[in-house]
Order: sequence, then C-alpha cells, then structure tokens
Amino acid sequence: MREKKVGVWLVGALGSIATTVIVGALSLGRGLAEPTGMITATEAFDGLGLAPLDGLEFGGCDLRRGGLRDAARHVMRETGVLSYEILDELDEPLTGIEEDILMGTARNCGEAIERLAASPVTHDRTARQEIETVRRQFRDFKKKKSLDELVVVNLASTEPPLVLQDAHLETDAFERALDRNEPGVVKASTIYAYAAVQEGCPYINFTPSSGALIPAVIGLAGRRGVPVMGNDGKTGETLVKSALAPLFQCRNLDVLSWEGFNILGNMDGCVLDHPENKESKIKSKDQVLSKILGYPLHSRVHIHYVPSLDDQKTAWDFIHFRGFLGSKMSLQFIWQGYDSLLAAPLILDLVRLVELAKRRGEGGLMPHLASYFKAPLGVEEHRLYEQFQMLLRYAQAVRA
Amino acid sequence: MREKKVGVWLVGALGSIATTVIVGALSLGRGLAEPTGMITATEAFDGLGLAPLDGLEFGGCDLRRGGLRDAARHVMRETGVLSYEILDELDEPLTGIEEDILMGTARNCGEAIERLAASPVTHDRTARQEIETVRRQFRDFKKKKSLDELVVVNLASTEPPLVLQDAHLETDAFERALDRNEPGVVKASTIYAYAAVQEGCPYINFTPSSGALIPAVIGLAGRRGVPVMGNDGKTGETLVKSALAPLFQCRNLDVLSWEGFNILGNMDGCVLDHPENKESKIKSKDQVLSKILGYPLHSRVHIHYVPSLDDQKTAWDFIHFRGFLGSKMSLQFIWQGYDSLLAAPLILDLVRLVELAKRRGEGGLMPHLASYFKAPLGVEEHRLYEQFQMLLRYAQAVRA
Amino acid sequence: MREKKVGVWLVGALGSIATTVIVGALSLGRGLAEPTGMITATEAFDGLGLAPLDGLEFGGCDLRRGGLRDAARHVMRETGVLSYEILDELDEPLTGIEEDILMGTARNCGEAIERLAASPVTHDRTARQEIETVRRQFRDFKKKKSLDELVVVNLASTEPPLVLQDAHLETDAFERALDRNEPGVVKASTIYAYAAVQEGCPYINFTPSSGALIPAVIGLAGRRGVPVMGNDGKTGETLVKSALAPLFQCRNLDVLSWEGFNILGNMDGCVLDHPENKESKIKSKDQVLSKILGYPLHSRVHIHYVPSLDDQKTAWDFIHFRGFLGSKMSLQFIWQGYDSLLAAPLILDLVRLVELAKRRGEGGLMPHLASYFKAPLGVEEHRLYEQFQMLLRYAQAVRA
Amino acid sequence: MREKKVGVWLVGALGSIATTVIVGALSLGRGLAEPTGMITATEAFDGLGLAPLDGLEFGGCDLRRGGLRDAARHVMRETGVLSYEILDELDEPLTGIEEDILMGTARNCGEAIERLAASPVTHDRTARQEIETVRRQFRDFKKKKSLDELVVVNLASTEPPLVLQDAHLETDAFERALDRNEPGVVKASTIYAYAAVQEGCPYINFTPSSGALIPAVIGLAGRRGVPVMGNDGKTGETLVKSALAPLFQCRNLDVLSWEGFNILGNMDGCVLDHPENKESKIKSKDQVLSKILGYPLHSRVHIHYVPSLDDQKTAWDFIHFRGFLGSKMSLQFIWQGYDSLLAAPLILDLVRLVELAKRRGEGGLMPHLASYFKAPLGVEEHRLYEQFQMLLRYAQAVRA
Repeated sequence: MREKKVGVWLVGALGSIATTVIVGALSLGRGLAEPTGMITATEAFDGLGLAPLDGLEFGGCDLRRGGLRDAARHVMRETGVLSYEILDELDEPLTGIEEDILMGTARNCGEAIERLAASPVTHDRTARQEIETVRRQFRDFKKKKSLDELVVVNLASTEPPLVLQDAHLETDAFERALDRNEPGVVKASTIYAYAAVQEGCPYINFTPSSGALIPAVIGLAGRRGVPVMGNDGKTGETLVKSALAPLFQCRNLDVLSWEGFNILGNMDGCVLDHPENKESKIKSKDQVLSKILGYPLHSRVHIHYVPSLDDQKTAWDFIHFRGFLGSKMSLQFIWQGYDSLLAAPLILDLVRLVELAKRRGEGGLMPHLASYFKAPLGVEEHRLYEQFQMLLRYAQAVRA
Repeated sequence: MREKKVGVWLVGALGSIATTVIVGALSLGRGLAEPTGMITATEAFDGLGLAPLDGLEFGGCDLRRGGLRDAARHVMRETGVLSYEILDELDEPLTGIEEDILMGTARNCGEAIERLAASPVTHDRTARQEIETVRRQFRDFKKKKSLDELVVVNLASTEPPLVLQDAHLETDAFERALDRNEPGVVKASTIYAYAAVQEGCPYINFTPSSGALIPAVIGLAGRRGVPVMGNDGKTGETLVKSALAPLFQCRNLDVLSWEGFNILGNMDGCVLDHPENKESKIKSKDQVLSKILGYPLHSRVHIHYVPSLDDQKTAWDFIHFRGFLGSKMSLQFIWQGYDSLLAAPLILDLVRLVELAKRRGEGGLMPHLASYFKAPLGVEEHRLYEQFQMLLRYAQAVRA
Repeated sequence: MREKKVGVWLVGALGSIATTVIVGALSLGRGLAEPTGMITATEAFDGLGLAPLDGLEFGGCDLRRGGLRDAARHVMRETGVLSYEILDELDEPLTGIEEDILMGTARNCGEAIERLAASPVTHDRTARQEIETVRRQFRDFKKKKSLDELVVVNLASTEPPLVLQDAHLETDAFERALDRNEPGVVKASTIYAYAAVQEGCPYINFTPSSGALIPAVIGLAGRRGVPVMGNDGKTGETLVKSALAPLFQCRNLDVLSWEGFNILGNMDGCVLDHPENKESKIKSKDQVLSKILGYPLHSRVHIHYVPSLDDQKTAWDFIHFRGFLGSKMSLQFIWQGYDSLLAAPLILDLVRLVELAKRRGEGGLMPHLASYFKAPLGVEEHRLYEQFQMLLRYAQAVRA
Repeated sequence: MREKKVGVWLVGALGSIATTVIVGALSLGRGLAEPTGMITATEAFDGLGLAPLDGLEFGGCDLRRGGLRDAARHVMRETGVLSYEILDELDEPLTGIEEDILMGTARNCGEAIERLAASPVTHDRTARQEIETVRRQFRDFKKKKSLDELVVVNLASTEPPLVLQDAHLETDAFERALDRNEPGVVKASTIYAYAAVQEGCPYINFTPSSGALIPAVIGLAGRRGVPVMGNDGKTGETLVKSALAPLFQCRNLDVLSWEGFNILGNMDGCVLDHPENKESKIKSKDQVLSKILGYPLHSRVHIHYVPSLDDQKTAWDFIHFRGFLGSKMSLQFIWQGYDSLLAAPLILDLVRLVELAKRRGEGGLMPHLASYFKAPLGVEEHRLYEQFQMLLRYAQAVRA
C-alpha cells in the first residue's frame, strides 16, 4: 500500500518557528537528530500510521522576503543546536523549499505587522479575491508535489483581536459579508483558515489570533469533515502554569496572586510590544488559572520586548498563596527556553495528528489536542496532566 | 449516636510542627481560623463522618522540656500568623495540654538528637521496657480523656537510617530480638510505632526515620486491623517536584539534571546538618524523580542549615532539560514556605483519615494517603496529581 | 548647654512608612530596639552632635483619618517586627502624637490620591491660602512643643509629574502665580515644600513627586540657608542597581538589557497603579543605569500592584550582558524587603543630617545626601559606593 | 623602536579557558572580534605601551592530549560565540600553536587530576629534575619564537591544598628540600611557578592551588624583579559578592547568612567534585565576605558538578539580612555565565599588565591587580569597586 503523501503549508514560513519546523523535519527525516519534544515519537503513538517525517513536503507564505537557509543558520546559531556540518547537508532541500514560499496577505493585521511586510501592504483586492488566491495556492502546491493531504498551520505574528460579529457566526452570513465586501470583517488569519477548510485541508491555529477559527469556519469544518484546532501553542510560561496550578488544589492552598512576567526578543516579541497585538496574547494566556483554580484571583500576565534575548524566552512568575492559619508563602519560577525549539515539535505533532484525524473521518474541533494550546477551543480542561491523558486515551482508542 | 472521641499522641510534641498542629486544631475548633491547607475540609470529604477538630484531645512526648504556650508564641510570631488576641484565648487549653506531654526516649537516635535532650540520655532500660512504658502511656491517656481512639503521629527529629536486619522483617523475629535485648535493633521510632500498633492505635510516620514502619510493624498492623502510613510528609520542595516532573513527560522533554538546594533554620534543619541524619532525609526525597520520569538522571538533593531562616524553608531547584534538536533549556523554582504551617494541616488530615480507616476496618498500609508523603510506603505512584486522584477516589468509595 | 529640641513633620503621617518612622524613633529612644539600618548610628557619625532620637517630637498631616496605634499594629504584624509587649509600651506616646496629625491637602494630586481622602477634596481655597494654613501649622507645632527646629518630610503618595513652567523657576514668578491664583501651577507637594522653606524648616522630599523641590523652592532655600534634598528614597531595586551596575564597568562588560519588575501591595503600590502617578516613579528610577554606565541601553522599570503582598516589596531584575567574543550572559536578582522598614531608618538619618546642616549654616541642595535618593537633585553620581563616600567625607569634614 | 615580543605559556593549555584565551587573542589580533571584557582595552589604559594582542605567541603544557582546533570548536559551539567562518580562519594558527603544547606534570595533584592524564602519571623523576625540564621548555620556547618576554599563567585544574611547611617559606630552605628530594613538598603548581621565577618569567596563578605562590617563590620574585600574582581568577559568584557586599555597609544592614550554591559542568567542575580539590576552591572563595563586612556571619560556599551544564556556570546566592527593628529581608541572585569567556579576557589583561610591570622593574606581588582575584595575595581589600580604583590609580601613575 502506497503511503499517503502529506504536505505542510506554513503561514509565516520565514519566521523562526517555521524555520525550525522545517529544519527539524529535515534533520529528523535524515536521522541527524532525535525527536525529543515530540509526543508522537513516543511509544504510545507507535503503530498508528502517522505520517513519516521524511515524507513531509513544505511550502507556505510570508510577508517578508528572505532565504530559508540564512534563517536556519541564524536560528540554529542563536540556540546552539545542530552543527554546521548538519546545516550544510540541509542547504539543498532548504533551497528547494524556498521556491514554494509565496507572498502572503496582511489584511487587517494592524500597523505592527504591516510594518514587517517586504512591500507596502495594498488594500485593492477584496477578501474574496484573496481567499480565492490562497485556495489556488493550496491546490497548486498539492498538485506540484502530488500530495494526498495538505495541512495548513498558522504561525504568523499575532493579530489584534477580532471583534466577533454576526457575520462570523455562520458560513452563510460570512459568505454574504464576503459578497458585500464588508470592511473589517476579514483578517489575514480568517482568509487562510477559511481557504483551508474550503479546500478540505486540516488547519491548526498555533497563534492567539482570534480571526482564524471563527464559528463560521469551525462549523464548516465540522460539516466537511475537516479537522481544525487552536488557539495559541502552549510552549512556555502557560505550560508551566497548567502543570503547577493543580498543586495548590491538591493541598487546598489559596492562590492569592499569580503575577507573570515574560520577556522575549524575537519578531513575535516585537509585534507583541504593540498594545493591540499584545491584547490577543494576554487574553489567551490569562484564562488558564481561573479555569483551573475555579475562583477569582489577582492574576496578570505581562509581556515585554527585550531585543537582546532574541529567540530566548524568559519568564518569571511570582505566586503568592495563603496556607494554614492564613500564613502567606510564595513559589517563584524562572523559565528559560528557546521559543522556536519549544514550538516546533508541537507543530510536527499537530500536523501528524490532524492528518490522522482526517483519515479517520473526524471533522471540526479536536478536543484531544487540548494539551498543545493555551486556549484550546471547545475545551474547559486546562490542567496539563488531564489534557495529556485525553491525548493518550485518544491514541488508545485509535489503536483499539 | 454519641460521636467517637479521638485523641492525638504527638511524638516530638514541643517541636514547631506539633505546636502548630495543636494551635491549629484549637483555633479551628473555636472558629478562629480557616481550614486552608486541609483537604479533609473540602467538599469531597463532606459527610464522611470525619472526627471534628474541636473534639480532638492532644498529648504526647518530647526529649526537651518547655512550655507549649511559649512555643506557640514563638512559632506564630516567626510566621506572622494568628493575632495575639487569638493566642491569648488559647492559653488555657495549651496549659492543659502541657500536662500530658511526657518525657520521650532517644534510643539509638544518634548524637545530634541526644544533644537535644533535656536530661542526659541513659541506656539502662531494655527496649521491651521502653515499649511497655509507652504502651502504658497510651492506655493511661485514653483512659484519662475517655478516648475511643488514639492516633499516634511521629514528628520527632530525623534519626539516622535503620539498617534492616532479619529481626525487623517478622513480628516473631522482632519479639525474639526484644527478648534477647539485642543492641542496635530498636530505635526510638520503632518503640513508638510498635507500641502504637500493639495498642491498636493508628500510626503515622511523618518523618523519614526508617526505624518506624519496619516490615514487622506493618505486618502486625495488617493482621490487627490498624492503619499505618508513612514516610516523611511531603510539604515543600518534593511537593513541587512531584507536581512539576510530569510536565516533562507531557512534552517528551529529557530532564538532564535536577539539582535541588534546601536551606532551613529550625530544629529539624539543625539535626539534618548531621550527615547521618541527613542521609535518611535525602534518601526519602531522592526517589521521586526517577520514579516519575522512569529514566536515570543527574539529580541531587542538598540540605543545609541556615539558622537565621528559623521556620522558613527556602528551596532553589535548577532543572536542566533537553528539548528539540538537542537544545538545552532550564526551569528554576524558588519555594519559600513555613515548615510548620505546611505540615500541620496535613497531619490533621491524616489523623482524621486513619481514624476513619480504622472505623471502616482497614489495617496495614494506606496507599490512598500517598499524596501526603515523600516516600509513600507500598506505593510506586509519585505524581502528585495521580496520588490526589487516589485520595478522591477513596473518598468517593467511602461515600458510596 | 541645653540641647536643641527637634521636631519632625511628616506629610502622609498615617502611611506605613511614617508609622514606622515614629514607632522606630520611639523604640530606639527607649532602648527597645537596635538602630540597624541607620548610617548616623555608625561610628563615622559619633560625636557630630546629631539630634538624639529620644528627643524627637512628631507631628504631621494626612488625607486619611485613622489611628496611629492601629496603623502601628498593622505594620508591625505584617512585617513580624517588635513584640506586642513593646507595642503596648508605645501606646501612650502614639496616642499623644495622633493629636498632632492634621488633615492635609490633595491639591492637583490626581484622582488616585483624591480617592484616598477621608472627606471629599474641595477646591474652594487658593493655593496661597493653603500655604498660609500650612505655615501656621508649622509655627503652632513648634510653639506647642517648644521646638528649636522642625524638619518637614514628604512621605505622601506619589503625585502625577509636574509640568515645569516659568512660574516654577524663580521665587518672584512663583509668588506672582500665587497672586493670580493660576490653576495647575501648585500641587500639594509644592505647598508643603514652599511653606517649609518660608518657615526656615529643612525639607526632605522622600517621594518622586516633582512638584516639591521646584527651582523656585530650591533657590529660596539656598538664599535663606535652609537645607533641602530629594527626590525619592532609594530603598530597594534602585539601591541594588546602584550597587551592581558598577560591576559591569569594573569588568568592561556591556549591559544589553536591564529589565526590572517591581510588585508591591501597600497604599503606595495602589496609587502607583495609576498611569499618571506611576510615570513620576519610573522617571525617577530610570536614570540611574544610563548615568552609571554612560551608554544607552534597553532598560525598563515596571511597577505593578499586587495587593496580597501588602508592605512586602518584591523585585525581579533581569540583566542581560555581553562579554568576551560577543557572548551573552545574565545576572538576575530578587529583592524581598519591607518597604516601610527599609525607608524608615533613612528618614531618621536624613532628619538628623539636615538638622545638622542647618545648624552649620548650610542651605539649598545637600549633595552629600545623594546616597539616600533615587534621583538626587543636583548630583550626577549614581554609584552607591561613591555616593556613600561623599557622605563619609562630609562627616569627616564636619568633625575636622 | 622595535616592539618587545611577548609570549604566553599556559599551564593547562588544552582546557577550555586556555583555548578561549588563544582563540580570543587570535580573533582580536585579526580584528574579528571586540575586546569586550578586557579592562586593558579601555581608555584608561591607552598609551601605556601594553603588548599588542596580535603579537602574542602562545605555548604551554597539559596532562591531556588533544587538538586545539577541536577544543576551540567545542568551546565556541557550547557558548554560541564566533561564527564558523571565523573559526575556519583560525585553523592554521591554532595548528601551529598545537606544536608548542607539551606534556605536563601532575606531581602531588591528587587522584582526580591524575585521572585526567593521557598517560599514567609516573613518579620516577625528582622535583628538581622536573623543574629543570620546565625551565628548559621556557628557554627553548623563548628562543624558538625570539621572545623578549614570556609570561607563565597557571590554568591547570585545582590541586588539593598545600600544607605549608618550613621548606616553603624561604628559597634556601626550599632548595635544600629539593636537594633532599623530600616527598610531598613540591606540587605541580610549585614546579611551574618556581621555574618561571627562576627564568625571570612573570607568573600568574589564576587557580586556587596554594602550591604555586608559596612564600619562597614570592620572595625570590621580589628579589629578582619578577612580577607574580594570584590566587584564583574572580570570574563569577565571588565577583558579584565583592560588588554586592558593600551595599549592606552603605545601609548599615546586618548580613545574617550568605549561602552560595555553584553548579558547573566542565572539567573544572569535575575535578572540584573531589573533596580535597574542592577544599582549595572554597577556602579561596570564602574569605571575601568576612573581610568586606568585618564581622562573622553564617556564610557557606557550595560547589557541585552538574555535567549537563558544560561550560555554563550557574550560581544561586541567598542573602538573608536584618534591617530596621530587627526585620528579616532577603536578596537572591542568579548568575549564569560561561566560565571560559569570563576568565579569558582577565588573563589577557593580566598578561599585558605583568609584562608592563616587568618592564618597569617591578617585582614580587602586584597588589594593583587585586580586582582580578578571589584571594588577592597580600591585599586585604576585597571590595570590587575599591580594587578597581587601585588598578585605575596604577594606570594613572604609569602614565604620569
């Protein structure tokens, strides 16, 4: 039986996360690195027929211009991973992939993102025209690479929050808004998500951009049997939060305050330094604690851009809690990790898992993928450990 | 139906943990404080007929002399809890309890503990004689206070590790060793544990002293229907470890090193500054990570005495882990808590839960209490969250 | 020779810093505590004829109502200092001082401060009328207590920044603005500072409020021989900064980023949560690094209100620096201290030192007091160690 | 005027510090990197005629075998500095230097160091023979490279402490001990130091090994006009200590405890994991605080080997201090730096400064170099800032 050929379309394909996804898949496919960080590489996922990493074909789009090879060298140098000998081996495939990275759209993404664009952002095309262009790009890439499946992953910079309107709730209403070419209804993230589902491509929103998985898109995905999931990959501070917060429940300790400070220096950090973009991120990060603890607490998330850190994210969280007889005590943690290297294995996992879900005829939201997201759509469970059990139970069910 | 009257016998009754247990039960019983930190005060344990806190009678023993009232004032001042008005209200009951605090034994506890003793430790009595004395103390206290049940809790300073011999494995062998008055076989902790089980008193070893719950004692407890559990209350660094370590599994990240540094300044810290006593503690703390992670890693636990900290335990843990493509990242945490205030609510929980178990006819080790201990006897599960589910399931089963 | 009798007028007299100043002076005066934290209690200041602490008379004003005794109990309980026995001894003198705490003014202090006021802030009096009232209060207090000298200390909550106008530059222009009753020219802090200097009272601005020591006030102080100094007591994060920053110079290491996060929970923190008040504080904290290092760097100070912390200030600073061959390394620090207990000894020092200066005929700014302030007026030196040498050299010169 | 030609003889030439010294000098000499971290590259040292970096000739010895090129690649990869393009440029000079790295001696260095040796350590030669061999190596290298001056730097792993005997106090006594071939008197570090001074080569002991600068060697250096200085380069935790400790003096705060934990993973860390070697290090680190603060305090330095950290040193220091009214507060710091990159610029500085001193006819200990050392010989001043002023004043004096 011929294996299915799977492609991955990365929105934001020149960013450091996308670069790491590509470099990672290439290295792993060639046996040049270990799959540390990937859950689908563990025993629990053996024999499920997941797409092999060495068969993935990569394409995508970006607002910037630039070479993948240089991006790869920059990221790998900053993070100290992969020897230059390995990078040399990847030059040829990276150059090949560069050809399939097209210019993207920045529709309604706000000033911070528009400023990143290689050429001035124009507003002369309708949203429908942009959707059609993107759908054609997906079809062309599938044809060019003879793909059985194409998974679309949103890795673009965080957009300002979408204000949900009636037009976002139902596919019909959304189509009518497109017909009327209503301004403000459609953001760049909506275009890629809607185009993906229309083309039957599984779609992952790894960002907090709320324009992507609007109800109209999720509903359509459910009806068409297209797996979709988001929002916002859980890679650092929130990951630790979702592991640590249950501790206080297991001891009946009252969390009084949980103040989190994130500093980071990559493109993402730069975009998040803009208040409207930051708002999306903080919304997505901030619900975890109250959902886990079940009571209101003084909790704030701060994100600041510190350019010298580059890809190294650092977070300091100060947790103040009340114990026996009203005593006040504290737990602090400091998390220091490379954003791209934390995110990339999750994305490879997600690509394989939504492709599997598609083959099994599952469509709409994928609650079993909750552990991968800061704000898992349709899931109330935020405890990391419980979310992980959901994933393991899914794997068991597939096997059975 | 008359409620059962329950007593608590604290070995190490003048230490700061015991003092906090007593002051805590008195305050809670009088409605002067909230039961924060006690799991048995949460909804899941409603209606199980647990012993009410205002009915508990306290007695115990210690090697030192001193007043409970002064100890209470010292602990409460150091930790900033309970107003002096509340402490004034407790003066009378504290004075009453002082009368029931007897002189303890320091048999084979090592030099560090002997030095604490108010009067020079003599070695002129046999272990059997000491066991008989303790049993009589238990019976006398039950009679004096008309108790239906007496729970014995070991809060004494950590002894040097017991080297397990044949005499510790079976009750018969142990009895024969007592008959022969063999030196070195019986430590102080063994005396209290054996006496408790012989008298049918549920027994909790809240310390790492391995002399207490030897197989001979556990076996007897099983046959007699006496609940026993240990070892070593999980109050701080190890608690955080057992909540955090699963995070790395949920992300398939390799923990390379986990180096933990504990500094503390109370009596416990002072005793643990002695290599032989520290050895017991470190053994008990050190198995958690390898048991949870399932692979060998560079992991060490360091404990140091810093007198100025008094009851405030501070721990810094540095966790070095490997992620995608071999990248190295880190998580650090700093835990700052009051030893006594972290331990006391666990002890009140345990007293109520072993009393419940006794009433239900359960004897021997109590695996559902694993979440309370650093080294839960007979339990391989070290993940805090899973241990907590074991406790909740037990509560559900009792109710059903 | 009769000793001079010295009074201290605290603006913001019911706040936790003022309370601690008073309680501290009373305890030290009675020999109930050690003068730890006071530089004037060290050998270098022996024999300079500084005002004895047991002779200080306290008065002041506040916008709030409330008792000093309760405030003292609250502060001392939160910070765990002074036994209740000691506080009992201070009840009588504290009650006496309460009588001399009058209602203050909130002129142009912004909404955050107005909200603290016990009675609604009215705007029916002119600035000149308020200045006259305050001058009379100073005179009355001096008379009542037969004081030779009255030192005025601003401990009120931080005001929004003053926009410097021509009217603030010269005394004449300021007087004319008062005559014209120009709105917006005079803030509460200006009233106390101007009144103090007019009355010949040495004045300390321990806050970042820039309305206090405007050029017109400083000029007048110089001409009248009245010592004044500010701004903003250096008690925590900035103190550490000014000690640590020279390290990087002593090693020719480039500081790339210095990101500082402050969380605190007292009234001060509450007022600083308002953007306009916070602006004053951040301005005052932010100049230290660039002044010490001598080059521009990415440096930001963040202040956030975390109510549960109460008087305990916590700061986390992340310092990213470049070393040999462009390597990036980091130093982090975590400072945990009680705001009031850090500030109070500095204030007692300053009171004694400006009283000394006045006696010696010195007027205007006091550069030798730079080490006490985050933004020492008229001083470019920000290195703590060098500032401290300035103070020691002054003491030597006085003695000589 | 022909410039003097200067050579550098590195004892421990294949270690990561030595490798970084060589790579650093080569890169700087070729203009491929900035001299960040070097004080002699700052303005204060302009025009003093210091030896140019591009003229330095390197040689040395080591117990291990191995190539400099591979060592350079390893160190640079671990620390993320210098691009591969730059390393490629250095291949040729590195290969050249490899030829001048000879086999060293491990006399009386203890088991931990002997185990590092490429060939089994033999004990068939007398100390005098070894000294003669080393002297000849120095002479040969000077001749081969036509050097005017050769500076010897000890970068070898820390030896166990030397027990000072009469034979170490005076040159005559030392010579007689050599004649008698007394066992235990001479360690490897003594051989290099004594040989250097005999040959008139300035000598730097960058390690805590107390066998190097024994009184007999220092005395001889003074008489012969040979500059020598040590001990133990101040690169990390102690550096921060010596900058921070004065803060507490500038505020009259009592340091109660200063507990420092160092974890590191390179060869140095491995050797220091042996108790006898660690003892030397801790002695050298531990005097700083009591010397600066002037009173006894609870202060301990802990060093632990954490292999995964490789060259990245991490230190956590917990400083507990008492402030006003007996309040207890804390300052913690976390230092994360690359050992080699912190040390290398200091060594290049020291080489240039002792060569300058030699030219100026200075011999014996060099107190103006105190800021470079954890335990500066003959200097009581441990405050970093004051030590740095000593260096600046020296530079001024040279210029004048």
